[in-house]
Amino acid sequence: MEKIHELLGYENIKIIQNDDMFSFSLDSMLLADFIDTKNCKNIIDLGCGNGAIPLFLTLKTKANIIGIEIQEKVYDMAKRSVSLNGFDNQITIINDNLIDIYKKVGCNKFDVVSSNPPYFKYQKDSMINKNDYLTIARHEVKCTLSDIIKEASKLLIDGGRFYMVHRVSRISEVFKELEAKNFGIRKIRFIYPKFDDEAMMFLVEARLNKKSDIKILKPLYVYENNKYTKEVLDIFNFKIGG
Amino acid sequence: MEKIHELLGYENIKIIQNDDMFSFSLDSMLLADFIDTKNCKNIIDLGCGNGAIPLFLTLKTKANIIGIEIQEKVYDMAKRSVSLNGFDNQITIINDNLIDIYKKVGCNKFDVVSSNPPYFKYQKDSMINKNDYLTIARHEVKCTLSDIIKEASKLLIDGGRFYMVHRVSRISEVFKELEAKNFGIRKIRFIYPKFDDEAMMFLVEARLNKKSDIKILKPLYVYENNKYTKEVLDIFNFKIGG
Repeated sequence: MEKIHELLGYENIKIIQNDDMFSFSLDSMLLADFIDTKNCKNIIDLGCGNGAIPLFLTLKTKANIIGIEIQEKVYDMAKRSVSLNGFDNQITIINDNLIDIYKKVGCNKFDVVSSNPPYFKYQKDSMINKNDYLTIARHEVKCTLSDIIKEASKLLIDGGRFYMVHRVSRISEVFKELEAKNFGIRKIRFIYPKFDDEAMMFLVEARLNKKSDIKILKPLYVYENNKYTKEVLDIFNFKIGG
Repeated sequence: MEKIHELLGYENIKIIQNDDMFSFSLDSMLLADFIDTKNCKNIIDLGCGNGAIPLFLTLKTKANIIGIEIQEKVYDMAKRSVSLNGFDNQITIINDNLIDIYKKVGCNKFDVVSSNPPYFKYQKDSMINKNDYLTIARHEVKCTLSDIIKEASKLLIDGGRFYMVHRVSRISEVFKELEAKNFGIRKIRFIYPKFDDEAMMFLVEARLNKKSDIKILKPLYVYENNKYTKEVLDIFNFKIGG
């Protein structure tokens, strides 16, 4: 069932959700917060889902933002959310495959490329339904990690910044793919569900045609005593990164 | 000047130090604590310096331990420390280059290989004195990261565990070299000087001929309010990992 969700603590932005189809995730909020939009004129979000990252980014930048979404019904939700918030002048949602999207939107043009990609490898013989909305969002059915990084390298200006959130289990592959496409890895931040837990996810910033100079930022903890930490609550309110 | 140092809080182990030549570091203590010695019969430490890691390991294992040290005077300190503590039956220090050491000590033999390696790349045209004791301990004059991982892969039994501490700036290279030599990366723990700092160092566990399955353990913080954290004090006392 479709519903309109107000971003936690931030009453000015509304987002159309559908739990059966696509809901934005905490990961997208943490990624949007992590993105440095300084001096940005053009931003593109690859696999934008219902538009959460483009919508969050309007809170901290006036840059033009494009979101690419391959699934028509999810694209439609994103487009309606953009209109609902009156951001039709700042955000353009495009219903297309992100592979070769540079042919439509331009190469070497974007200051920032972001992506909250499908996290899981897709095995052809697995039992998952490859036409299912959630399957396409979560599994590499339509594009792989390697595809996303390759497309980002075509879209970005020289020195442009690429931002992604991914699962810790794939960090070595992320490093390898980034460096193979001439990205320098710059910042990593691990997301720990709780103090004393292992990290499950990480945020990465990489720069095109720069050397790697890796900084491991302080940990980002999500919960403390079964409540969101102050840092995460501040991110929901965009007090940080705003 | 040479002096005998008692390991902090642990009065039973004495180690011969020389500040001009070689002092064991906090990194070596944290690495020794991180090493899982379960079911170990044979352990080898590559580039053992004054023997800190072999000596620490006697606190938690009865395995035979070999330390390899290329610098004769540093080797001599290590050997004397071993004797001073009465561990001549458990620890053997060998004065040799770690490259090709498997020809002397045996291949596919060790359950655990550990190394606190030289952290810095060596530029031939740099001004550092390549015969200086500290230079050889800190810079890749006599062996590189790639050499150490290659030698570890020869020394270890199938599924054997490799442990290393290294600088965060080289983590991507460490991952690449490990996977190129058929190691599976298993555990990573980042060492943060203080809460809110960036991590400077990391500990890694990898297993020979296994797949990567990376876990990012909880952060290890060294200082809090200008004092060692409880966890680090416990490591000095070997309450943890003992």
